[in-house]
Amino acid sequence: MSSRELVIGFDADDTLWHNETIFENVHARYRDMLAHYHDAATVDRTLFATEMRNLEPYGYGVKGFMLSAVETAIELSASKISADEIRRLLELGREMLAHPVDLLDGVAETLASLAITHRLLIITKGDLRDQERKLAKSGIAQHFRHVEIVSEKNESAYVTILRRHSIAPEDFLMVGNSLKSDIVPVLALGGAAAHVPYPLTWAYEQVDVLPPSEGRFFEIKSVREIPPLLARLAR
Amino acid sequence: MSSRELVIGFDADDTLWHNETIFENVHARYRDMLAHYHDAATVDRTLFATEMRNLEPYGYGVKGFMLSAVETAIELSASKISADEIRRLLELGREMLAHPVDLLDGVAETLASLAITHRLLIITKGDLRDQERKLAKSGIAQHFRHVEIVSEKNESAYVTILRRHSIAPEDFLMVGNSLKSDIVPVLALGGAAAHVPYPLTWAYEQVDVLPPSEGRFFEIKSVREIPPLLARLAR
Repeated sequence: MSSRELVIGFDADDTLWHNETIFENVHARYRDMLAHYHDAATVDRTLFATEMRNLEPYGYGVKGFMLSAVETAIELSASKISADEIRRLLELGREMLAHPVDLLDGVAETLASLAITHRLLIITKGDLRDQERKLAKSGIAQHFRHVEIVSEKNESAYVTILRRHSIAPEDFLMVGNSLKSDIVPVLALGGAAAHVPYPLTWAYEQVDVLPPSEGRFFEIKSVREIPPLLARLAR
Repeated sequence: MSSRELVIGFDADDTLWHNETIFENVHARYRDMLAHYHDAATVDRTLFATEMRNLEPYGYGVKGFMLSAVETAIELSASKISADEIRRLLELGREMLAHPVDLLDGVAETLASLAITHRLLIITKGDLRDQERKLAKSGIAQHFRHVEIVSEKNESAYVTILRRHSIAPEDFLMVGNSLKSDIVPVLALGGAAAHVPYPLTWAYEQVDVLPPSEGRFFEIKSVREIPPLLARLAR
């Protein structure tokens, strides 16, 4: 694989900008709100169970999270939670949607330089409007040739995207923080993948086993390591 | 413009399948739920005002509608609405998401025949997951070469889509029930547009003025009128 011809796909949330920290902060306030009904561990466990149950109807993103949070609060309070408390929950959701976009360290400079030599894509899942808004606020939108927002990042979603842009899997490097959504499906298709772990990972995104990757899988600490990685691949 | 080369774009909700009727049914149950607080007109007006205020953060679709419906119920009940009533509202939302897809009269046959002679696209706005699910349930997905789900159907969205598929505006016919989202932007770009009114129109989608269209605008009663329209255009 020649580094010059590589197309590089980037996940967005927790790869280019902070996201899980915003959810963690909201989780903490949510636990406080429900503290007189249940302990933190029960709140977390029940909310996660509601989110998993609602993943099929709601999909990913802040709006589905908020609907699940309201539902869980009613359940955990045995319907005693007040309308004013629910209103505060809805406000918390709108705060999340209005949150400034906070780029990860090194992202701005690294992408500006990579965009000169490579075709860059964003491939992200979640809510269409919320992801578009974050990209618009990020200040780095101009570096990406295409932006693909999909409802699920599985093998078939990557096949569709790579075909649409006439990219052979062996010419594709995906960069992201989620083994499940960014790494496993791309390795399975014969592409390369660089995993940049984020300090927090949503329980849903964790996986234990990687497909065979024969030198196509890389573990990096920051997107700053991508240019030297490309140089190494080109040799 | 030659009919053979025309690419035909279809809106989905209320053009291919019923949607506003589902919302109307939920509106009726919502008015009943709040009837001991306010009259129907006040409920409708306040809900619409909340939806408009939340359009920027939430975008289109059932999840944003549900969040706005919960918020409005709290407001209209002066925070007296119970957690159980809010839970029933959330259930109403999940029923909407699970609702069967009910094709409009003539859609199945007309699309099956148009797909033989023309490239067909779906161009729809709203929630990514919900629109994908409806298309999968519709039984007509195989007739469409591409499906574009966007957060807003304005001129710039159509420019992006037509460019992506290398379609010249003069070779494009858009079919849809919304003058605002399906007709006005396409006429403005120099494309053709066929308006198929649906018995119900969401207040937000109403417009008063059409751009100059010099024989490129058609008012039809059903998608069944598209094949004869194409024959007429080809003459």
